[in-house]
Amino acid sequence: MTRFKLQVEYDGGPFVGWQRQDTGLGVQQVVEEAITAFSGETVRVHCAGRTDAGVHARGQVAHFDLVRDDITVKTVRDAINYHTKPHPVAILQAEVVDENFHARFSAVEREYLYVILNRRARAALSHGRVWWVPGPLDAAAMHDAAQVLIGKHDFTTFRAAVCQAQSPIKTLDELSVTRFGDEIHVKARARSFLHHQVRNLVGTLSAVGFGRWTKADLKRALEARDRSAGGQTAPPDGLYLMRVGYDEHATGAKPFVSEDVGAEDE
Amino acid sequence: MTRFKLQVEYDGGPFVGWQRQDTGLGVQQVVEEAITAFSGETVRVHCAGRTDAGVHARGQVAHFDLVRDDITVKTVRDAINYHTKPHPVAILQAEVVDENFHARFSAVEREYLYVILNRRARAALSHGRVWWVPGPLDAAAMHDAAQVLIGKHDFTTFRAAVCQAQSPIKTLDELSVTRFGDEIHVKARARSFLHHQVRNLVGTLSAVGFGRWTKADLKRALEARDRSAGGQTAPPDGLYLMRVGYDEHATGAKPFVSEDVGAEDE
Repeated sequence: MTRFKLQVEYDGGPFVGWQRQDTGLGVQQVVEEAITAFSGETVRVHCAGRTDAGVHARGQVAHFDLVRDDITVKTVRDAINYHTKPHPVAILQAEVVDENFHARFSAVEREYLYVILNRRARAALSHGRVWWVPGPLDAAAMHDAAQVLIGKHDFTTFRAAVCQAQSPIKTLDELSVTRFGDEIHVKARARSFLHHQVRNLVGTLSAVGFGRWTKADLKRALEARDRSAGGQTAPPDGLYLMRVGYDEHATGAKPFVSEDVGAEDE
Repeated sequence: MTRFKLQVEYDGGPFVGWQRQDTGLGVQQVVEEAITAFSGETVRVHCAGRTDAGVHARGQVAHFDLVRDDITVKTVRDAINYHTKPHPVAILQAEVVDENFHARFSAVEREYLYVILNRRARAALSHGRVWWVPGPLDAAAMHDAAQVLIGKHDFTTFRAAVCQAQSPIKTLDELSVTRFGDEIHVKARARSFLHHQVRNLVGTLSAVGFGRWTKADLKRALEARDRSAGGQTAPPDGLYLMRVGYDEHATGAKPFVSEDVGAEDE
């Protein structure tokens, strides 16, 4: 048996989310069916972060096992990309990893990007890829306030009611807010997040950006440990799972290196 | 009569190009019909650069006239944005300009961006917004070679057969090639361009990027003044009209400034 690790990019727009659902197509199903199409094996693909409907990924990580031992990582990557057409899902990289590696449980860091389009005119080129906020937001005030959330806290205020995590206590390592022209980028980094945590943090920070909330209001909301003390949930369109970090020594990942692998390996 | 100048963003994907055509919907028609919808006047909208089918714009400039004198620039911007829905067209800015201003003939500079996705995996998030080139390209070699094209030349080699310009002689002020991760950005800047000139330049530069052509080959192709001596035409998907420059003193543009105008004016 060989365990493969994948780096996956997708446009979340047409999907019900990562996971298989009865209500529509999940990214998981697209990838699993592509693997079956070239390998003949029925597989279960596990991911690092089960993104919701409409949430995008540039660096989702997943793993699966094949019984056949005659398939190279190059074949895995190119064959999944061939068979996932025409869906907006692309395998950026494939590696063989140790059988102890688990995309979700071995992950030691997740990084999300949330993109707000902050201008009067609605999105034309970035429709479905941003949260359009027409009124002016103060990105510097949002960044300053966000720093009260850094560190180990009970994040119940920013946790979805349906969240299945055993504990609401998480350690937020980074929450930075930066303006680039008419876009505001919110970068969130932690070992793991609660369900809807990033979208709830961004929605609440928008109240600071509008000047309705102060940094002290944000701190009080956190300390209330009550979802109703927090702000709105930002829409999924602006959220991207960018990167998942692993301790390489612990997982035994063996990176695939080949001269014909193309530009993505530079 | 009042002349309005617009800055327009659009996704070229669903359109037959800027211009009205019998074969499908042009951006021009969408904007003209939106203006009629709120003003009751039948107008002709003139643009700075008549982009082809599939070509995008972040900074297209257009102008039109209204007989009514009771409509503010804020109304013009917001009403066009309201009435162009659900098409991916957005008015980023509206200004009142002098009646001597002409979006096309007053322009003194145009800037285009061409985006190549250079990796083995096809585009998922950027599908329709880039030219996917799976084989590795040497962006530094492309940039170095591109410098032989800077300046005043007969660009017949890079001119579409259907081009209606009176002369093939143009002055190219900038042609820079830069890699950003798995994207290669080609920036082209000139007073004006021939039909398909940027796409033909990018397609030909890709031969340099693959190592099939040298800088000297590119110079010979330019000097041949023969379209068949040039390389392929890059697809429209990767091309963006980014900015159009005007001599402000000559056009008498009066920028609209208001405290409630939103974040795009920062």
